[in-house]
Amino acid sequence: MKSVYMDHASATPVREQVIEAMLPYFDQHFGNPSTVYDMGLKIKQVIEEQRAKVAKLIGAKPQEIIFTSSGAESNNLAIKGVALARQKKGRHIIISAIEHHSVLNSARFFERMDFEVTFLPVDEYGLVDPERLSRAIRSDTILVSIMHANNEIGTIQPISELSAICREKDVLFHTDAVASVGNIPVDVNELNVDLLSLSGVSIGAPKGIGALYFRDNLRLMPLIHGGIQESGRRGGTENVPYIVGLGKASVLAVEELFDKMNHLEKLRSLIISGVRERIEHVKLTGHPDKRLPGHASFCIEAIEGEALIYMLNQHGIYSNTGSACASKALKTSPVLVAIGTPPDLAQGSIVFTMDSSNKVEEIEYVLVKLYLAVEKLRSLSPLWRSKEGI
Amino acid sequence: MKSVYMDHASATPVREQVIEAMLPYFDQHFGNPSTVYDMGLKIKQVIEEQRAKVAKLIGAKPQEIIFTSSGAESNNLAIKGVALARQKKGRHIIISAIEHHSVLNSARFFERMDFEVTFLPVDEYGLVDPERLSRAIRSDTILVSIMHANNEIGTIQPISELSAICREKDVLFHTDAVASVGNIPVDVNELNVDLLSLSGVSIGAPKGIGALYFRDNLRLMPLIHGGIQESGRRGGTENVPYIVGLGKASVLAVEELFDKMNHLEKLRSLIISGVRERIEHVKLTGHPDKRLPGHASFCIEAIEGEALIYMLNQHGIYSNTGSACASKALKTSPVLVAIGTPPDLAQGSIVFTMDSSNKVEEIEYVLVKLYLAVEKLRSLSPLWRSKEGI
Repeated sequence: MKSVYMDHASATPVREQVIEAMLPYFDQHFGNPSTVYDMGLKIKQVIEEQRAKVAKLIGAKPQEIIFTSSGAESNNLAIKGVALARQKKGRHIIISAIEHHSVLNSARFFERMDFEVTFLPVDEYGLVDPERLSRAIRSDTILVSIMHANNEIGTIQPISELSAICREKDVLFHTDAVASVGNIPVDVNELNVDLLSLSGVSIGAPKGIGALYFRDNLRLMPLIHGGIQESGRRGGTENVPYIVGLGKASVLAVEELFDKMNHLEKLRSLIISGVRERIEHVKLTGHPDKRLPGHASFCIEAIEGEALIYMLNQHGIYSNTGSACASKALKTSPVLVAIGTPPDLAQGSIVFTMDSSNKVEEIEYVLVKLYLAVEKLRSLSPLWRSKEGI
Repeated sequence: MKSVYMDHASATPVREQVIEAMLPYFDQHFGNPSTVYDMGLKIKQVIEEQRAKVAKLIGAKPQEIIFTSSGAESNNLAIKGVALARQKKGRHIIISAIEHHSVLNSARFFERMDFEVTFLPVDEYGLVDPERLSRAIRSDTILVSIMHANNEIGTIQPISELSAICREKDVLFHTDAVASVGNIPVDVNELNVDLLSLSGVSIGAPKGIGALYFRDNLRLMPLIHGGIQESGRRGGTENVPYIVGLGKASVLAVEELFDKMNHLEKLRSLIISGVRERIEHVKLTGHPDKRLPGHASFCIEAIEGEALIYMLNQHGIYSNTGSACASKALKTSPVLVAIGTPPDLAQGSIVFTMDSSNKVEEIEYVLVKLYLAVEKLRSLSPLWRSKEGI
């Protein structure tokens, strides 16, 4: 059976070159970077080289990068690290209504610790209104966290506009760039952010490695207390192989970005126009233009998203519904609710996320199978039959 | 040049069988375990199989295991997760004076959050006195954390005696078993503990994977908030390859434990008696019998430990001084201070930690080079020369 993987926002295969780069660090160069003998010192040096590569990917300085175990850990470290370090300055945090669970639940954690959290609404495309952000900032606001691109609807926020407002009011700005890094240009200075989370998963490095950018000498309470690793900001022996993998993947991501974007925009355009032409009563979710190049998401009327995923799966097509992490936990996606999708329609969510390995020919295959699956599911739906007068 | 690696407490090479087990999960079975389609479900199943293997290693039930990114994260999750979940019950924590930095600094973090922490002294061998623990427990004590075996002096605590006291007084007991798992039998029921940390590094799995055992349905505030992974107790997409590696390493550790212990006890005995016979003015640190089988640690008079490490390194011998994580941060090891080592003598700390790959022949080589290095360093030491009347 043909296999078409279009769920790259959930997971990507680790790239061959990345695996090759990592392998010697499992059993040959295996020493602990904190040791004082030659093997340790060499490995410490290797880690610093990777830090520079990751920094380059986002226009940062090497000393502004902390390696973490995931994008989720980076988000936790950003929110908790800043909130705990700055709580004497104020106890108010602002996040958008469509943040990843790791940001959302970190913020909620502080609500129980006598912080106040403002959840900024978004418009029908998932965009945060800069005016609204400006009005939400108070004298005790210490941190704003708004994601760069949303993994479920693909919308890209006007981060530099939003961060400028915060900069002016001396409020720190964090962005979760897990979905954007490697897919669009990400530069911490252009975005003008103080903290930025990224993950290896998005760029063909393994699950289990991420990084947090923090501007210069920003104070940050560690999330994982321990020894002097990562300049005292994250305890635990460094995960050397994955750090090497993230370094390699960063170099490749820089080299390939513009070709990848061109390719993905073409695929996205084919899938969006194809769905609109062939399937009735379907809504593109997220912004029509300000969206990730490889991201196409829809709500299809009178369809259960999960049933659709299963049917496509039977034809070797891998796609998603709602956020990857939340897909089993929630019936209705909070992101789709936040952009004003009626609950019935939100049930019919389907998300295709592509990368360089996807091919033009695959799109036609997906469109055919999607059409047939929708027809089949609708033919079984009493709701649809009554609507169509059958 | 000959190479003799005797710093297994700092890092171990990942075992070949472990690497082989992990490899297919990088680019073949790469799906996200939280997805609903076949690939995700299969990987979810694989994770649960590994959970059972890790559980078996320590006599736990699979649902009592949380995968983390390191022993340090496990320790943080244990201390912070319990303290935050139980703070209404009380705000007093007890730890020993010789805990790993990840326990120590997690506890200190709570001191700044209006908790009180008691640091239990240890005797000259590094042992915690059960009587003393009993007296330290108060009505507001919520957690005691005492490590199973110390990585710097090798001493094994009488955990079941200590935990029995806590059980009687309804205080939770956590043990950091990073140094003991895979080296001596570790069974959560025999030890009678509520929480136990372990790490992949100790058993030939990669750096960057660990686990926390928590008894049954113990309440635990997540350290990394996020989605529903690890039953909602740790957010972030699961690090599938390393989880598979930890599972494989756990199976091997169970199979090989007793042969390994016998082998290591022999090596330990050879190195300890050899050092005592050949080098004057040397003190074995830690307990003579209640110590890890592959662990030999000394303080050598009129020697700088770091200089000794460098000299041995020139002969291909890898050993350590003080705790691996702290070796660059601190001049005098807090563990050696806690067991009453005079500061001068503590400077001369050297630690050999062995595993199955070490051979009897290597011991003679190390003893010869160690003797020569000590002679050389002492000949350069004014302190030694005046003492010897040269």
